Amino acid sequence: MFEARLISATILKKILDAIKDLLNEGTFDCSDSGIQLQAMDNSHVSLVSLTLRSDGFDKFRCDRNISMGMNLGSMAKILKCANNDDTVTIKAQDNADTVTFMFESPNHEKVSDYEMKLMNLDQEHLGIPETDYSCVVRMPSMEFARICRDLAQFSESMLICCTKEGVKFSASGDVGSANVKLAQTSSVDKEEEAVVIEMQEPVTLTFACRYLNAFTKATPLSGQVQLSMSADVPLVVEYRIQELGYIRYYLAPKIEDDES
Amino acid sequence: MFEARLISATILKKILDAIKDLLNEGTFDCSDSGIQLQAMDNSHVSLVSLTLRSDGFDKFRCDRNISMGMNLGSMAKILKCANNDDTVTIKAQDNADTVTFMFESPNHEKVSDYEMKLMNLDQEHLGIPETDYSCVVRMPSMEFARICRDLAQFSESMLICCTKEGVKFSASGDVGSANVKLAQTSSVDKEEEAVVIEMQEPVTLTFACRYLNAFTKATPLSGQVQLSMSADVPLVVEYRIQELGYIRYYLAPKIEDDES
Amino acid sequence: MFEARLISATILKKILDAIKDLLNEGTFDCSDSGIQLQAMDNSHVSLVSLTLRSDGFDKFRCDRNISMGMNLGSMAKILKCANNDDTVTIKAQDNADTVTFMFESPNHEKVSDYEMKLMNLDQEHLGIPETDYSCVVRMPSMEFARICRDLAQFSESMLICCTKEGVKFSASGDVGSANVKLAQTSSVDKEEEAVVIEMQEPVTLTFACRYLNAFTKATPLSGQVQLSMSADVPLVVEYRIQELGYIRYYLAPKIEDDES
Repeated sequence: MFEARLISATILKKILDAIKDLLNEGTFDCSDSGIQLQAMDNSHVSLVSLTLRSDGFDKFRCDRNISMGMNLGSMAKILKCANNDDTVTIKAQDNADTVTFMFESPNHEKVSDYEMKLMNLDQEHLGIPETDYSCVVRMPSMEFARICRDLAQFSESMLICCTKEGVKFSASGDVGSANVKLAQTSSVDKEEEAVVIEMQEPVTLTFACRYLNAFTKATPLSGQVQLSMSADVPLVVEYRIQELGYIRYYLAPKIEDDES
Repeated sequence: MFEARLISATILKKILDAIKDLLNEGTFDCSDSGIQLQAMDNSHVSLVSLTLRSDGFDKFRCDRNISMGMNLGSMAKILKCANNDDTVTIKAQDNADTVTFMFESPNHEKVSDYEMKLMNLDQEHLGIPETDYSCVVRMPSMEFARICRDLAQFSESMLICCTKEGVKFSASGDVGSANVKLAQTSSVDKEEEAVVIEMQEPVTLTFACRYLNAFTKATPLSGQVQLSMSADVPLVVEYRIQELGYIRYYLAPKIEDDES
Repeated sequence: MFEARLISATILKKILDAIKDLLNEGTFDCSDSGIQLQAMDNSHVSLVSLTLRSDGFDKFRCDRNISMGMNLGSMAKILKCANNDDTVTIKAQDNADTVTFMFESPNHEKVSDYEMKLMNLDQEHLGIPETDYSCVVRMPSMEFARICRDLAQFSESMLICCTKEGVKFSASGDVGSANVKLAQTSSVDKEEEAVVIEMQEPVTLTFACRYLNAFTKATPLSGQVQLSMSADVPLVVEYRIQELGYIRYYLAPKIEDDES
């Protein structure tokens, strides 16, 4: 028997929004410790890794480890039927081939259940090596989303250049060339608005705007985003999900032929 | 001479929105007692019946009965030109082939008039027999709209099952199966939020989601909707229009081949 | 060296929105006294004339007169990257073939610069003769936009008829005929809501709705719009831009074959 409950459907909706454009389907691996999903995006370029800890749920019970392959488009359709203040319960029997989503209104007078077929998906667990990154940037997630959207107008790829003083995002194409510089903030009223840089050595890397923009679909999950970068190693874009866990996106840098 | 005035254009706009997707054209039958429109929808499946009582208007004068056939798309275009706080006056001469809509701003400094050609439409008045329904459900109109929209994602048709305890809406298809249960409310702060069921005997009927969704275009007219159901008899979906009258939609249940 | 700074990017964004649908490209003529742009729209029917006075800028320096031909679509893309509360600085070297837009956040922690190639555009300066207009109407710009949008539903062209009592806008087509009358306001709480008519002699002129609607893209720039009309002379539609200057659109009246 698997059962996991969240007081508010909002977080689960936002999590789906953060992954459903990158992944058509995914396997939720459930165990005592929580729920994990790891998958390459549909075009096999970036990697999505989601971790939800069991202690972040309002109720969590997992008698045996189960892996539930789900069509994320269908799951998103079902979650759209939940009101934001509904309680959500995800339920599955031990060897079941279906999963049930139950939504309850705060006054308990509306109860909806949606049953969805599970899928058998091929899965290969990719070991992600622990890395000490040359630069780690924490910044407002809205600002990062804004910059990715703006620079995508100018080119398919953008340069991220990180030094002690700040981080610079650049793109250049037919329309013109663009540079956005963020300084490390000295002091801010709200922690969410801080730009904080931890640097071992400066890095300059190029990434495909298209994937960065897809990652920013996670923006509603967190006020801050963390970018971890080292030369020749995939960028990690991480959004923390309150008490529940995090979502991480991995994207390898582009090798720039024209500049080598 | 026919003349009918409403202090606020909003209601008339909402009424048009509630019928213009179902009906391309319609005949407004005007008499001393008010305005009536009755017509089968464009695909001749459901029936729309609108009643506006003369005493609900701010001014109402109808010297002789007249029937005004109108293109509802054109009428909607004209009503879009009214501001919500404009006064609306509908005017027609006794044997005229045009109708005039006059909009006046609250300060009387803007006056607009729109003249539209009338049409000759075939009309057959359908007698709707008075029926004692097995189940009558009153519920928040927004909730009903939400359920119809949600379940339409899963199937072309949905089941409404009404018992003493509550009403259940179900749909099932490729994505999965969905059940939404509403309990009769025991007590509510706002009358509009109540779910009230009057039941002689339980009913379970199947309806096409497409038409139910079209009916919910009337949602802005009323906080509550009333569903009246009996076996083998058309469902009545009724929205009251404040002091003016009501709009009723009739839809025959589907005969479910696969379950008989 | 040319450099012009505005404390708020909002005005510049609104100016671009007001001209970019009519003009694909335009030449900004910069001198000591400010910036001017004058051009026929893409279909060579109407004329756009923009004047921004140097003393309206927060900083303005123009060592030598320069003419900067810009692709307005590209310029709009760049301005979209500015936040509304960013400071904007436009910069160009004396003989440069590029222009730079610099955006700075209020806290100076985000600085963006966008460089765009300049274009060589053919230019002919049209002398616009000073005219004493028969009628000058000042009215709320939102009201004018609303009327143009509403009447465009009925016909491709609309009639403007101005007398001492008020101004009437009319259109007529398949749907029906429409007349919107605005009376001169006697007294208003807010100056922006006034309708004021200065009339030497009454005029009745016909204009293409399509261009009038394009002109109303300037509505966010000003609470009031001024229409200046004389028989057989282009209409002038003017929006003042706070302390900076104005944008004027010129449109010749239609000759109505069917009514002559």
